[in-house]
Amino acid sequence: MGQTLTEKILDDHLVEGELETGEEIGIEIDQVLTQDTTGTLVWLQFEALGLDEVQTELAAQYCDHQTYQFDFKNTDDHRFLRSAAGTFGAYFSRPGNGICHNVHKENFAAPGKTLLGSDSHTPTPGGLGQLAIGSGGLDVAVAMGGGAYYIEMPEVVNVRLEGELPEWATAKDVILEMLRRLSVKGGVSKIFEYTGPGVESLSVPERTTITNMGTELGATSSIFPTDEKTEDYLARQGREDEYVELQPDEDAEYDDQLTIDLSDLEPLIAEPSMPDNVVPVSEVEGVDVDQVMIGSCTNGGYEDILPAAKMLEDRSIQPDTEMIVAPGSKKASEMLAREGWTAEMMAAGVNYSEATCGACIGIGHVPGSDSVSLRTFNRNFEGRSGIEDDNVYLCSPEVATAAAIKGEIVDPRNLAEELDDLEAPGFELPDQYEGAENDIITPDDPVDDDLVKGPNIGDVPLKDELDADLEGEALLKMEDNITTDHIIPATQDILMYRSNIPKLSEFTLSRVDDTFAQRALDSDGGFLVAGENYGQGSSREHAALCPMYLGIEGVLAQSFARIHKANLFNFGLLPLEIDEADYENIEQGDDIEVVDDVAEAVRSGQEEFTVRVNDDWELTATLDASEREREILADGGKLSHTKKQADSGSGAPADD
Amino acid sequence: MGQTLTEKILDDHLVEGELETGEEIGIEIDQVLTQDTTGTLVWLQFEALGLDEVQTELAAQYCDHQTYQFDFKNTDDHRFLRSAAGTFGAYFSRPGNGICHNVHKENFAAPGKTLLGSDSHTPTPGGLGQLAIGSGGLDVAVAMGGGAYYIEMPEVVNVRLEGELPEWATAKDVILEMLRRLSVKGGVSKIFEYTGPGVESLSVPERTTITNMGTELGATSSIFPTDEKTEDYLARQGREDEYVELQPDEDAEYDDQLTIDLSDLEPLIAEPSMPDNVVPVSEVEGVDVDQVMIGSCTNGGYEDILPAAKMLEDRSIQPDTEMIVAPGSKKASEMLAREGWTAEMMAAGVNYSEATCGACIGIGHVPGSDSVSLRTFNRNFEGRSGIEDDNVYLCSPEVATAAAIKGEIVDPRNLAEELDDLEAPGFELPDQYEGAENDIITPDDPVDDDLVKGPNIGDVPLKDELDADLEGEALLKMEDNITTDHIIPATQDILMYRSNIPKLSEFTLSRVDDTFAQRALDSDGGFLVAGENYGQGSSREHAALCPMYLGIEGVLAQSFARIHKANLFNFGLLPLEIDEADYENIEQGDDIEVVDDVAEAVRSGQEEFTVRVNDDWELTATLDASEREREILADGGKLSHTKKQADSGSGAPADD
Repeated sequence: MGQTLTEKILDDHLVEGELETGEEIGIEIDQVLTQDTTGTLVWLQFEALGLDEVQTELAAQYCDHQTYQFDFKNTDDHRFLRSAAGTFGAYFSRPGNGICHNVHKENFAAPGKTLLGSDSHTPTPGGLGQLAIGSGGLDVAVAMGGGAYYIEMPEVVNVRLEGELPEWATAKDVILEMLRRLSVKGGVSKIFEYTGPGVESLSVPERTTITNMGTELGATSSIFPTDEKTEDYLARQGREDEYVELQPDEDAEYDDQLTIDLSDLEPLIAEPSMPDNVVPVSEVEGVDVDQVMIGSCTNGGYEDILPAAKMLEDRSIQPDTEMIVAPGSKKASEMLAREGWTAEMMAAGVNYSEATCGACIGIGHVPGSDSVSLRTFNRNFEGRSGIEDDNVYLCSPEVATAAAIKGEIVDPRNLAEELDDLEAPGFELPDQYEGAENDIITPDDPVDDDLVKGPNIGDVPLKDELDADLEGEALLKMEDNITTDHIIPATQDILMYRSNIPKLSEFTLSRVDDTFAQRALDSDGGFLVAGENYGQGSSREHAALCPMYLGIEGVLAQSFARIHKANLFNFGLLPLEIDEADYENIEQGDDIEVVDDVAEAVRSGQEEFTVRVNDDWELTATLDASEREREILADGGKLSHTKKQADSGSGAPADD
Repeated sequence: MGQTLTEKILDDHLVEGELETGEEIGIEIDQVLTQDTTGTLVWLQFEALGLDEVQTELAAQYCDHQTYQFDFKNTDDHRFLRSAAGTFGAYFSRPGNGICHNVHKENFAAPGKTLLGSDSHTPTPGGLGQLAIGSGGLDVAVAMGGGAYYIEMPEVVNVRLEGELPEWATAKDVILEMLRRLSVKGGVSKIFEYTGPGVESLSVPERTTITNMGTELGATSSIFPTDEKTEDYLARQGREDEYVELQPDEDAEYDDQLTIDLSDLEPLIAEPSMPDNVVPVSEVEGVDVDQVMIGSCTNGGYEDILPAAKMLEDRSIQPDTEMIVAPGSKKASEMLAREGWTAEMMAAGVNYSEATCGACIGIGHVPGSDSVSLRTFNRNFEGRSGIEDDNVYLCSPEVATAAAIKGEIVDPRNLAEELDDLEAPGFELPDQYEGAENDIITPDDPVDDDLVKGPNIGDVPLKDELDADLEGEALLKMEDNITTDHIIPATQDILMYRSNIPKLSEFTLSRVDDTFAQRALDSDGGFLVAGENYGQGSSREHAALCPMYLGIEGVLAQSFARIHKANLFNFGLLPLEIDEADYENIEQGDDIEVVDDVAEAVRSGQEEFTVRVNDDWELTATLDASEREREILADGGKLSHTKKQADSGSGAPADD
């Protein structure tokens, strides 16, 4: 039987398990990446593991979320990260050099390699045949130490592309169509492998827009085969020698399949406040637009901004619509500036920003109250923009720019009819990607050889081994689709405490109930209760670490998002699945008691747990965990586990 | 007797009083400007005055401090300001279009006109012969209503310039030399009038660097005569028809005079943390530099950034020194981008920002802890950068860029010797200033005709008439040189409450004593006690408004900064001067009682007040106030006063 492309790369990196869907496998990691809001903790954990040097082929530390450096803590974090990269042997991308996914794609992403990153959009380089997975930072720290990365073998789904995109339809519309069909839960435990004759019509940057935003499907990863377009892209980046041809076998068997005819696509838009609220742009025409933003790891490349610049040439945006362009990388920004496009956009009325994630996570250019913002980003979760009652739409650069020209949402095809001389800008790659040559500090030529810790950079908290008894109050009951943005918001006033867990924990779930953190601290242990898909969204492990710090012992949910569930194991919180009826019956404030000897049951592989509620009625909850995950959980989390292994001389973390 | 240039312009605008030093005069205002952190209150006050339309020749509203919009309140403020400009007939400069002083200079500044602005660096266009004065926002609101602006006739000081600047010395070094000689108190109640043969060697942008930073001398304003250079500059801005020749009479008599031989100047630098801590750069060579910033209203023009770009061409900055360039205007930024300089700077490693005041007031790019930042800005007051224990140096773009290249402070003359091919970049104007044509909304073509107030935009608090009795605790005793940054910090977490006085007041004097605001609220009235030069720095009227909101009734100080003293009158707080011995004897917590019938004494022109301390000893304090200021004070501040006049049918505010 032939192999899928995913299976080929996994096979090539397999150190434990078998490639059977749902089975736990351990894979070797070639490259890791971290960014500034998750990276501080990664390096503090790496330091705690006691190793001298990064063991992966390549590690890269980016500074992209906090490039505005609104607080000295941000600047101190960047200085610490530079020192950690220098001390332990990683590449360091300077603040202002751009978003990790964009810069990694330009400089390091390589077909056939595995990449683990402490950011949920790590799958971006799947667009050039790299198998890239987002994880909690602790997994990244362990991988940097040479340890394998463990994951349940996902389903591999074949997304067969046919036809070619018509004018004004873009790669963004491909992934919006996927979200429209499958929803934000549709990719959980899946890898989407794009195949078919439509693939060759898409350039690598278009492919990476699709793989990047595959994260919003809940997918483990997304990947394209490699071909002449891949080789050509690498050549334009000056890295043609890294090209490897990678295709699935012709007789590969997939767990599932769907087909998208590119020629059927039209400009789409995700309405507030979920990326799968997708409708044709033509259905929402006429909505007044206050703000338009182009950028992010989804659509912040040179090739993404160029169409906007072309559309704006010799035009102006509406005076009551603000338009901000934040390039994804300084290389892209430098090329646009060198070719005159930056000046052209400024002339049209654009506010041109430094390269940053910024507004995508609510840092800067927060929409006004009761206003509408169109963004080329990947997420529009409520409140993520920095204001609770936001109205954020997601769309392509073309749709966003059309709205800035018109002052309202408009299908660019209709705008083109209205304005005689507005042509579809097409999608164009530069002959050569050149620029920002001074913005990556290499491990061969570091500027620091010792860690520099500012006063806000604290130690990593540890948890004790699991006890036999587990009992406490249901401190908070939540709905479906609670995101990690709900658990630990990523807005700027909070983000700066990412390296200071006691302070950061005060904000835990404050967007759901701002009394929660204090109630949890005042309680002696306790539980969270949630509906479906608990912990979707960003990979931030602080969403598990902070509840752990507050004394939360477990989460009862109808289902868990993949990365967050791994984070719960990694920080020693028991994730139990419950059915809908039991979910409905539990009330906030109920007393929850796990009747079994929990430590023993977890270690022994017991799947069903009896949970007694208010000493009154019982339900059965399920622990779906591998042997390895059970050991980690029982030991009090991965750091305690890894240290325990190391102390007992079992050679961890390399064989963790 | 001949007239100084200052006297000529004042004479031309005089509506009350005589041009005798120290006498109060009322002058007609031709132009006003406001920015986003002072402007919301200006327009709320203008609204409270009940007028329909701006009465000055020109009013311009800029959005420059909060361009990062890192809270929805910032974005809401910008929307409110746009709506106010549209409703009442002002120009509106969009967020991202640049710093008020830069944009005003480019578009509106005109020789011979008067300009009143609610920003302390309003004197900037003095460089092209405009008499420009910074004031509290309430004075601006009244001026917009057609009312005169009242001020004590300042001393006019002749600064005679001889010779020409040598290589590597710049206009920044001229004003640093002024600060070195005169200190931050040296210009209080003075207007500096630059004359002499050295003037013609300086272009208008160089002159405006000097007039801009004249504010740091405590000066009321600074002004240059106009000449061919002025005419040439206006022509390059497409405004040659606005040129007027303005020179002092040859036999003009000045109150004082000093001479600067430009050819004696060398690169200078202000050490932390006061702009007058000036030494030659060569004396502090070798200090490691973590951050270099180019921009601000002092040195953020096209002509200021161009030398930095030239120095960086084909070079790179040190990997452990970050360099951020924040242009002062989008026009400057667009020209630099169009000519390729932006790309060149990015290639060298520069993080290129949107046009903003930003970091100068602690918003963005806050230095790390225990680090050194070199900035081309005008102020380095402790903590202003956003971190308490900062080390901010002020210098020219050339000195700043040299430090980025070397990684440490270096006299650029020495760096030029070290690097064979580093030439002095000189100072160059563009043939034509062009760009950002879509970023100013004119009053003829507004996009709003009604005020749009977000939920954070509140009402203006009012104060009752002064009572006969004034007694309370000395709630806080402070040292010399307390700045308005101490009274109401301008850091971003606080700045966003500028339109929400109850919330903003919680931060009053928190940098001196964070228990103060609550103690003041809990007290029934009370006093502040300070040393010399109380209230220096920014013009922000919130520094008087917030203490008023907290119930403070008066300030006992050895001396007051000019703008802040006017603000105290305007918000109904009694500013009493005391001598040094009495200052030393008063303790925080003492009971202060003004023995006289205060309301009666203030209105009747009484200058000496008897103050009884702890019912134990007495001192004599002085109220130095004009008849008009006394009426305002007694009525409970200018807004109450102006409304009272209007209610009594006396035709205010036009004749206020």
